[in-house]
Amino acid sequence: MTPLAEQTTTAAADALEAAEVAVLPTGSTEQHGPALPLGMDHMAAHAFADTVTERDDAVVLPTIPVGVSVHHRQFDGTLYVSEETFEAYVEETLSSLAEHGVRKAVVVNGHGGNSAALRRAARTLRQDEVAFAPPWNWWDSVTELSGELFDEAGGHADAMESSLLWHVREELIDPDELAAAEAGASEGWGETVHGAALGFDTIDFSESGAVGEPTQADPEKGERLFEAASEELHALLDWLVDRPFAECWSRPHR
Amino acid sequence: MTPLAEQTTTAAADALEAAEVAVLPTGSTEQHGPALPLGMDHMAAHAFADTVTERDDAVVLPTIPVGVSVHHRQFDGTLYVSEETFEAYVEETLSSLAEHGVRKAVVVNGHGGNSAALRRAARTLRQDEVAFAPPWNWWDSVTELSGELFDEAGGHADAMESSLLWHVREELIDPDELAAAEAGASEGWGETVHGAALGFDTIDFSESGAVGEPTQADPEKGERLFEAASEELHALLDWLVDRPFAECWSRPHR
Amino acid sequence: MTPLAEQTTTAAADALEAAEVAVLPTGSTEQHGPALPLGMDHMAAHAFADTVTERDDAVVLPTIPVGVSVHHRQFDGTLYVSEETFEAYVEETLSSLAEHGVRKAVVVNGHGGNSAALRRAARTLRQDEVAFAPPWNWWDSVTELSGELFDEAGGHADAMESSLLWHVREELIDPDELAAAEAGASEGWGETVHGAALGFDTIDFSESGAVGEPTQADPEKGERLFEAASEELHALLDWLVDRPFAECWSRPHR
Amino acid sequence: MTPLAEQTTTAAADALEAAEVAVLPTGSTEQHGPALPLGMDHMAAHAFADTVTERDDAVVLPTIPVGVSVHHRQFDGTLYVSEETFEAYVEETLSSLAEHGVRKAVVVNGHGGNSAALRRAARTLRQDEVAFAPPWNWWDSVTELSGELFDEAGGHADAMESSLLWHVREELIDPDELAAAEAGASEGWGETVHGAALGFDTIDFSESGAVGEPTQADPEKGERLFEAASEELHALLDWLVDRPFAECWSRPHR
Amino acid sequence: MTPLAEQTTTAAADALEAAEVAVLPTGSTEQHGPALPLGMDHMAAHAFADTVTERDDAVVLPTIPVGVSVHHRQFDGTLYVSEETFEAYVEETLSSLAEHGVRKAVVVNGHGGNSAALRRAARTLRQDEVAFAPPWNWWDSVTELSGELFDEAGGHADAMESSLLWHVREELIDPDELAAAEAGASEGWGETVHGAALGFDTIDFSESGAVGEPTQADPEKGERLFEAASEELHALLDWLVDRPFAECWSRPHR
Amino acid sequence: MTPLAEQTTTAAADALEAAEVAVLPTGSTEQHGPALPLGMDHMAAHAFADTVTERDDAVVLPTIPVGVSVHHRQFDGTLYVSEETFEAYVEETLSSLAEHGVRKAVVVNGHGGNSAALRRAARTLRQDEVAFAPPWNWWDSVTELSGELFDEAGGHADAMESSLLWHVREELIDPDELAAAEAGASEGWGETVHGAALGFDTIDFSESGAVGEPTQADPEKGERLFEAASEELHALLDWLVDRPFAECWSRPHR
Repeated sequence: MTPLAEQTTTAAADALEAAEVAVLPTGSTEQHGPALPLGMDHMAAHAFADTVTERDDAVVLPTIPVGVSVHHRQFDGTLYVSEETFEAYVEETLSSLAEHGVRKAVVVNGHGGNSAALRRAARTLRQDEVAFAPPWNWWDSVTELSGELFDEAGGHADAMESSLLWHVREELIDPDELAAAEAGASEGWGETVHGAALGFDTIDFSESGAVGEPTQADPEKGERLFEAASEELHALLDWLVDRPFAECWSRPHR
Repeated sequence: MTPLAEQTTTAAADALEAAEVAVLPTGSTEQHGPALPLGMDHMAAHAFADTVTERDDAVVLPTIPVGVSVHHRQFDGTLYVSEETFEAYVEETLSSLAEHGVRKAVVVNGHGGNSAALRRAARTLRQDEVAFAPPWNWWDSVTELSGELFDEAGGHADAMESSLLWHVREELIDPDELAAAEAGASEGWGETVHGAALGFDTIDFSESGAVGEPTQADPEKGERLFEAASEELHALLDWLVDRPFAECWSRPHR
Repeated sequence: MTPLAEQTTTAAADALEAAEVAVLPTGSTEQHGPALPLGMDHMAAHAFADTVTERDDAVVLPTIPVGVSVHHRQFDGTLYVSEETFEAYVEETLSSLAEHGVRKAVVVNGHGGNSAALRRAARTLRQDEVAFAPPWNWWDSVTELSGELFDEAGGHADAMESSLLWHVREELIDPDELAAAEAGASEGWGETVHGAALGFDTIDFSESGAVGEPTQADPEKGERLFEAASEELHALLDWLVDRPFAECWSRPHR
Repeated sequence: MTPLAEQTTTAAADALEAAEVAVLPTGSTEQHGPALPLGMDHMAAHAFADTVTERDDAVVLPTIPVGVSVHHRQFDGTLYVSEETFEAYVEETLSSLAEHGVRKAVVVNGHGGNSAALRRAARTLRQDEVAFAPPWNWWDSVTELSGELFDEAGGHADAMESSLLWHVREELIDPDELAAAEAGASEGWGETVHGAALGFDTIDFSESGAVGEPTQADPEKGERLFEAASEELHALLDWLVDRPFAECWSRPHR
Repeated sequence: MTPLAEQTTTAAADALEAAEVAVLPTGSTEQHGPALPLGMDHMAAHAFADTVTERDDAVVLPTIPVGVSVHHRQFDGTLYVSEETFEAYVEETLSSLAEHGVRKAVVVNGHGGNSAALRRAARTLRQDEVAFAPPWNWWDSVTELSGELFDEAGGHADAMESSLLWHVREELIDPDELAAAEAGASEGWGETVHGAALGFDTIDFSESGAVGEPTQADPEKGERLFEAASEELHALLDWLVDRPFAECWSRPHR
Repeated sequence: MTPLAEQTTTAAADALEAAEVAVLPTGSTEQHGPALPLGMDHMAAHAFADTVTERDDAVVLPTIPVGVSVHHRQFDGTLYVSEETFEAYVEETLSSLAEHGVRKAVVVNGHGGNSAALRRAARTLRQDEVAFAPPWNWWDSVTELSGELFDEAGGHADAMESSLLWHVREELIDPDELAAAEAGASEGWGETVHGAALGFDTIDFSESGAVGEPTQADPEKGERLFEAASEELHALLDWLVDRPFAECWSRPHR
């Protein structure tokens, strides 16, 4: 289906009648080191959502571009809203969609920092039986493949993310800067001291804003990631389409 | 300047250093009758913001696609968030930008329903001396011209809006439906009974979701509107660039 | 009916049984230039509400004296609460009334700054089917007449408001100061730059706090305004009494 | 001084310059049994505040008519807002006044149910050094005298309240109903079971809505109460005027 | 019954099935002068709740240790949360319990400053028919006995409290400091000026943090208080067990 | 040091003067399958905090017993508060402590569900430079050891948790039920479908409420875990004591 925003209300009436599920892309606008664009995360989400337009049983909502990125705020260009605001924005958007009869959705998410808020939004919508809308982080669907492709701990603007962006928005990566990204990168995300997770802000542990080994990135790997994750997304949508509502909602007390 | 989200943090550091002002496009995804796409308002805002990428003194933020559209909720495809949530989303986004040193902005707005929330966000940012970010509704800058071009009261999905969309996203208008839009349209916005504004929801007074006389629309008129309003926007940006901060902030008690 | 607050609970039981509609006067305590009292807006609302005590089908609630006047705060004597607080105060008051069976109301409003909050309160009460309580701004019911009587753009403490106060609270106007009010007045409300509404605070555009041409004021004009607007208010009440609840509530999805 | 709302902003400038303290009357609109008007509490507060207009060092704010009366909601005519809303309304009103330089106030309160909210508002204003604004419940200033005048436990719409109202708004009491009030009254406020305070709502323990022995009321006793309490209020204002700000604010950590 | 937290979920299933009522102990961690431990109030609540473990019809919840103690903050060791947060913490805890079928409770409270929040929580739970959970302040159940035992006005860390603690946590009192406590104590709680309750913080009126005459304390008196209050608590629980739900909930409009 | 709540304010003055750091134990009261007590998580936190009483440079706050456990609500005995309320309760408690000069703390946490809220509280306190208070989940400090001791994925009421409880509160485990716990356990936490984390509630994926292989539990393993984690906690406290405040606070913009 054409993205929802590109349809008239008349066309949307039919589309929403036919749709079994929706896709809401969410990401962020935040530093991704010297080689990747600030919009990396919402661009990734957008690209995955775009593959869904080929389906007749799914409607694609507009991409939400600013997310929970307070921990990147010391790096230029990072935009952010609070977790509460982001959660409300997503939850209310999905709730308004439910009024038109589409009450299953996948939040296609490109930014790890959004996860907790998305889980809470999904929990609320589910408990109230408004909608069943689990978030889907693209990288969580391809952990095995990315383990094969890259030798890094990673976590942000790493080889995995860089490859994906290289594939989906080739013109926006600056490959010459991957070395600089890596030079200033931390090995893994955050900083742990005797079991306590510190590293409240990225700047606490990464000089360049990147984490991992971005020089391992290449566009072919990105393509493989993209194809593999897209496949998972569509499998998830198929699964969701088939799932009876009775199994979507919260279970009663034992 | 390239849109902010397409820049790396390194490039953004320079861009934000050079920028005197930012542009944040906001709109909605809501019914615009049978002839116009649901994304009309954020597409218009996006198109105006896009003209700003040619400037070296301005940075363009990502487009916020869902707004305050509860009053269109009975029409298929309308998405909405609450006024509080929309206000917070905009205010926090601009506040995060201000951390990078850009503290003047124009919120390029395509949806009248967002106005009250945008005014409040701008007021708060101004009173706290975080940023000076007045909203700019594109149609308010061309009232004279639209009076010349169209003979309608209008107010939503009317000849003026239809013309603009026809110009900026020609492929998304369905001109054959303009007659149907007009057939079911109310003459003006809302419904007034003895001075009391009723018409809480569009459905209370419009059958098709449109208001005004959309059949008067044509793409040339749209182009004239777009050019004229763009000119006003750029004049506003020039004015804002020149305005000393001392004149931006709230005045003290007399 | 005697104003509600002057009745015992026993008398109120009968009165509320008989009543089809309520009237809640709201205004502000804020600067109105050198000639008018700070309480102008709540006094006007009170005066209109007072005419309703002659009806047997309407109950008159106490006047809410402080409103949304942050934009007048630089002028001495202005009191204000936030939009959220004002909205909650009005909405909860009307909701508590509804528990006694009166679920239609007109909010007789004397202050333009209250309008957005009153609209939101009315929307919430309507969507929840607690009460149907549209706000009524007295000046919106007499636009034609005030166009005849005065030659001004106006908007605050202008000839229209001054005339009305002169009629309803003659002892509180200082006619000798109307010239000073006008000398420091702006022509119209606010300040527009290339289509962007600036003028966040009155002090941004008016020296005296007034807007328009207050020297055109006189008490006979005030009387005509008062009579005409009262007539509209009573016509609105008649209309509301007759309106079936089914037509008051929000409509379902198309 | 003339009540603030009756002054122009010009006059208010002088008045606020001269004023050392403000008075904000608060009450409720709630059942007071079959003999007293619903507005009893705000009328009492208003009457006491009115005596303050004779002073040159005090400014009198408008009366806030609806308060924290949820516990009376089962009786006809009771209006109420939530504790949070009432607290915010009062706190923000006093905070707006403080912008004009008057930062000491007495909240002249006629309704016991408002007390907790008023204490919290006063605490916040004090801790933030915005204003020092302790609430004053009129009956707390005349406990000795009322002990002499009446032989009752009382607590609401009792002989003490009835007498006061009889004095200040003679036309609004219905003395013939005092017997009925007493017949259905509980002896004291609330209901205690093994030390637990029950009696969440008045209807839980009082048939008529009254508490105590209202038949002991008479207007002369009311006059004595009014005079005595007024004297206390003025003594409090004198004390407050003399109190240095350094002694008004919260003390530092030991 | 064993305290709830010490049971497995399997055991709890039976216990909750058998239980008619729950007990939630609440207190504070705040200064109690030089002789008593900071945890006085939650320790007292805990001790009373502990006597309930002998009952088969009651379940004992964990003790909530930090309460509404902002007014003691200038004294070392005082911890506190806001009234809103404390209210929510208690209300949500009781609401979660109600999901397991136990919808009557007594909040066994050891701290006067918690009372208003506990009343509000109980009111909300009752109005929503989630649970009937009146707070019980132990000292309110033994006013007569404490009048006999002690000759003091008191109110905080006084002879009454000191005696109780001496009995329940003998090892934590420092009897040698009772004289110092009394030397710096105020006679009664707070400070009243012409009927206005000042004394926002304890430090405003008490040097040592104590109020009353703590030197009258002794452990035997404490034991008598404890036994008497425990008896009242159990009588209250018996009463609550027998009370039909229909009499627990709010009454309808008259 | 003696736990804070067991000290008088006089003793606390010295203790807080001497203290460099505080420890706040947090946990939950929630189902832990048929073999472990509901209070498992707060008991574990309490036990670790208890080891800190031997230090002269640390103060131990009372244990917060109810946490973020909504996902266990279908199992008997689970108590919970919302994430917002829990976050506020912790943040305000630590903020009140900071008023006494102790501005470093470790939140010793026994419940994974509390983590996101604790991170947010810590972030806020850090950004506002009120306190530096990272949460410490005991199991995160002994991942290597638990990998050696147990062959399970686990995640809740597993062999690791069971062992720990067996060591610290031997009398509260029911070893005979470990087999039943395991029989109804899921292998790992949650349920993942094509990369989307489902398993919003424990009941969605675990029959017994347990996860992992609890039959591997034994008290000696528990002792080793406890000793190892305690050592880590004390090392963390040492590290924190030595950390200059300048390195605790958020870093400025690059």
